[in-house]
Amino acid sequence: MTKNNPFFNKSFISIDQISSKADVDFIFKVADKMKYVVEKNKHFEPLKGKTVAVLFYQPSTRTFTSFVGAAKRLGAYVIDIHEMDSFSSAVKGETLEDTIKSIHQTTGANAIVLRHPEDNSGELAESASYVPVINGGSGKKEHPTQALLDLYTIYEKFKRLDNLHIMMVGDLLYGRTIKSLAKLLVKIGKNIHITFVSPKELKAPKELVKTLREKAEVSQKSVFGQSINDVDVIYMTRVQKEWFEKEGKVDEYERLKLKFIMDLELVRKMNKDAIIMHPLPRVGEILQEVDDNPRAFYFRQMRSGLYIRMALLHSILLP
Amino acid sequence: MTKNNPFFNKSFISIDQISSKADVDFIFKVADKMKYVVEKNKHFEPLKGKTVAVLFYQPSTRTFTSFVGAAKRLGAYVIDIHEMDSFSSAVKGETLEDTIKSIHQTTGANAIVLRHPEDNSGELAESASYVPVINGGSGKKEHPTQALLDLYTIYEKFKRLDNLHIMMVGDLLYGRTIKSLAKLLVKIGKNIHITFVSPKELKAPKELVKTLREKAEVSQKSVFGQSINDVDVIYMTRVQKEWFEKEGKVDEYERLKLKFIMDLELVRKMNKDAIIMHPLPRVGEILQEVDDNPRAFYFRQMRSGLYIRMALLHSILLP
Amino acid sequence: MTKNNPFFNKSFISIDQISSKADVDFIFKVADKMKYVVEKNKHFEPLKGKTVAVLFYQPSTRTFTSFVGAAKRLGAYVIDIHEMDSFSSAVKGETLEDTIKSIHQTTGANAIVLRHPEDNSGELAESASYVPVINGGSGKKEHPTQALLDLYTIYEKFKRLDNLHIMMVGDLLYGRTIKSLAKLLVKIGKNIHITFVSPKELKAPKELVKTLREKAEVSQKSVFGQSINDVDVIYMTRVQKEWFEKEGKVDEYERLKLKFIMDLELVRKMNKDAIIMHPLPRVGEILQEVDDNPRAFYFRQMRSGLYIRMALLHSILLP
Repeated sequence: MTKNNPFFNKSFISIDQISSKADVDFIFKVADKMKYVVEKNKHFEPLKGKTVAVLFYQPSTRTFTSFVGAAKRLGAYVIDIHEMDSFSSAVKGETLEDTIKSIHQTTGANAIVLRHPEDNSGELAESASYVPVINGGSGKKEHPTQALLDLYTIYEKFKRLDNLHIMMVGDLLYGRTIKSLAKLLVKIGKNIHITFVSPKELKAPKELVKTLREKAEVSQKSVFGQSINDVDVIYMTRVQKEWFEKEGKVDEYERLKLKFIMDLELVRKMNKDAIIMHPLPRVGEILQEVDDNPRAFYFRQMRSGLYIRMALLHSILLP
Repeated sequence: MTKNNPFFNKSFISIDQISSKADVDFIFKVADKMKYVVEKNKHFEPLKGKTVAVLFYQPSTRTFTSFVGAAKRLGAYVIDIHEMDSFSSAVKGETLEDTIKSIHQTTGANAIVLRHPEDNSGELAESASYVPVINGGSGKKEHPTQALLDLYTIYEKFKRLDNLHIMMVGDLLYGRTIKSLAKLLVKIGKNIHITFVSPKELKAPKELVKTLREKAEVSQKSVFGQSINDVDVIYMTRVQKEWFEKEGKVDEYERLKLKFIMDLELVRKMNKDAIIMHPLPRVGEILQEVDDNPRAFYFRQMRSGLYIRMALLHSILLP
Repeated sequence: MTKNNPFFNKSFISIDQISSKADVDFIFKVADKMKYVVEKNKHFEPLKGKTVAVLFYQPSTRTFTSFVGAAKRLGAYVIDIHEMDSFSSAVKGETLEDTIKSIHQTTGANAIVLRHPEDNSGELAESASYVPVINGGSGKKEHPTQALLDLYTIYEKFKRLDNLHIMMVGDLLYGRTIKSLAKLLVKIGKNIHITFVSPKELKAPKELVKTLREKAEVSQKSVFGQSINDVDVIYMTRVQKEWFEKEGKVDEYERLKLKFIMDLELVRKMNKDAIIMHPLPRVGEILQEVDDNPRAFYFRQMRSGLYIRMALLHSILLP
């Protein structure tokens, strides 16, 4: 499609593989084309004759349907299984490597999308596979297409990846999404300001903050709702009750969670052009009353997932 | 396809939306065309480039495969999930509205088929959805495509919806299918005679009988097998053991159930042109010996489901 | 595709239906063409407009994905369900015959692939079905496409089915795969030598040995690893711990299992042109160090499954 396709015939396992602005420009340009195709309901089946296997060992509504939808829209034959963990091979104790090899052979798959609970499953699958592997989420470590689609959502709105102030709210300690996006944004964009807002118990890891500060301005707060008028993006996440329960601090959770809720009153304090993002599902962090506000971008954000995954499949399978 | 398509770009949630003979004529005419396409194995992919998501929170062999088969035959990209209830979004407590919005965004779906255990799920989904929703069964209340396919089966056989005598047999108290069909038939057809045959414990609700009597002749019996020679359609359903168990009347069930069985002896008393219908699965109400009799229409009835669902998808997605 | 297609419009339930060298030649010739199509990523959709239902009552990673992949690659509309046992019809007590008829009617399927735990499920389904049924594994008795793909793997390598020495190793008592292949090979090929290698407790049934000896040379051993230099094929299978556990002989299992392991040292004693097969999944019978040896054919063997299943679907659905 374009010259110098850095993704062609390669696995996509880690967000670290996105090493330059050029990589991002390339994949976003392809994603723009995919957006055009989908919005115009175009017949566009460049992957006709190719097979994509989508193997999920953990169910995931959004990521699963997004990859399956992406592959089908491009005309690929799709073998989609979303309970691989209950399949006989897994139950009988087959290694992930053997399963990856097997699925390729039984289906002739030209690429394999994998979601698996083990942190190193992406690398393991890649090492065993005869064809490119795309990581649809591996354990608590990597979910590279989520980071890309988050970045694409920002890019689509602002038409730039520089000079941005992004506020990340909620669980910054365990949340995989936010860490990946922060690192990617700082690597690619210039003059980035990140404000972390979280309960003290769920603060962003010190090492992450230190790394980010080498290239960006980083602020930290434990109160949400102040000084949000100059923010471009507010990225909400769920404050996880589980953590407080484990520590026997449920009362504290009940007190805290109310402080990290996005309602219409807060939304109206935001800049007119700012946007609200969320990886979803939400369980109360963003009130439903916000959904119709033009700043609410969390549903459109998921649509970015379709375009990014189409772009990746296209770029990996075609030169 | 045809002028004045009353279904285009609308959700189909309740059988009450079929408000006139013209609506029925329209959708049956499209269904006739679908029948032709399927029987001739025609390449006919008018939905090419469009995506249909089929989301089932309750498994249902017939309805699920029928919708998936219908959408695929029309050339749509199909995202089909038949255990949505075990998907992470449901488990994590996401609202149905958020899931409906999400699936649309992640897949670009142009229509969503939903089956869900809650009575009001159809309306809820429609209110949240950016695209038409088709109700594949909502709780105990609505299963509008079943009523339509039942009516189409009768129409296909008799080439008319007037001057019909239909006998409905079995559980008339809890059975959703029979109530919907009776109401639809009486709304659309003239000079309809309905004979309800059930154990006293499972009689049709009085209010239903009253409503039907405003437009049709309604008889009620508790004995099955008499005066069936002038009936056009015998619609069998399962007498539900569960009900008698709950009431501690299992003996009565054992006695009753034998009185509501269709065997070859009974079939031969029927009019030569009459037909036997059943929503299936059956568990003994119709003996297997009946299957090869030309009056046995319960398998062909399911084929009507394919044509009706193709017709609905076609009419909703194309002007 | 070719004249005198012996498979057209017929069910394929038992390997006994392969009654002559001509049958094998026919299906292997079609499989060769399928191999060409897949390897060249050709657009080749001869089943466009036809529907194939793939119904699995037992999950099976390889067989399921292989049939689904095969049908999709040929352009068929595919309805694939791999937990039919949890579907409502099965739960509600519907007979297999009714389900087979129903799925055909609801989807318009032109062929049905069935995997089912009952030994006679293939025959039962065929008797009920309006369209050809393909047996994807029925209980412990038949798995005819596995035998065919095994034979095709041998044929592809040696370009002959005569003058072969095949060593079958492991559980020869319960293993379904090995028995079917042995019978098929002896029926089709001339001058076949089979060496059975198993623990005494898991020896091939006497009757099988007797039948095979009518047409072939059969040796039996209880030690693995000797005289393997003149063997063409070593077909490994899992020695099943379950059997020894049931008999309270786990110690014996632990002692025995080490004697039936294929490692690189053994591989190097094999003839240069010999091959190693295994139906997979493996759980230790073949060490991973063997995988890169050119004699390791167990992954390529699975690819034969794709070609054979494409060939069968093609031959059954097209004249």
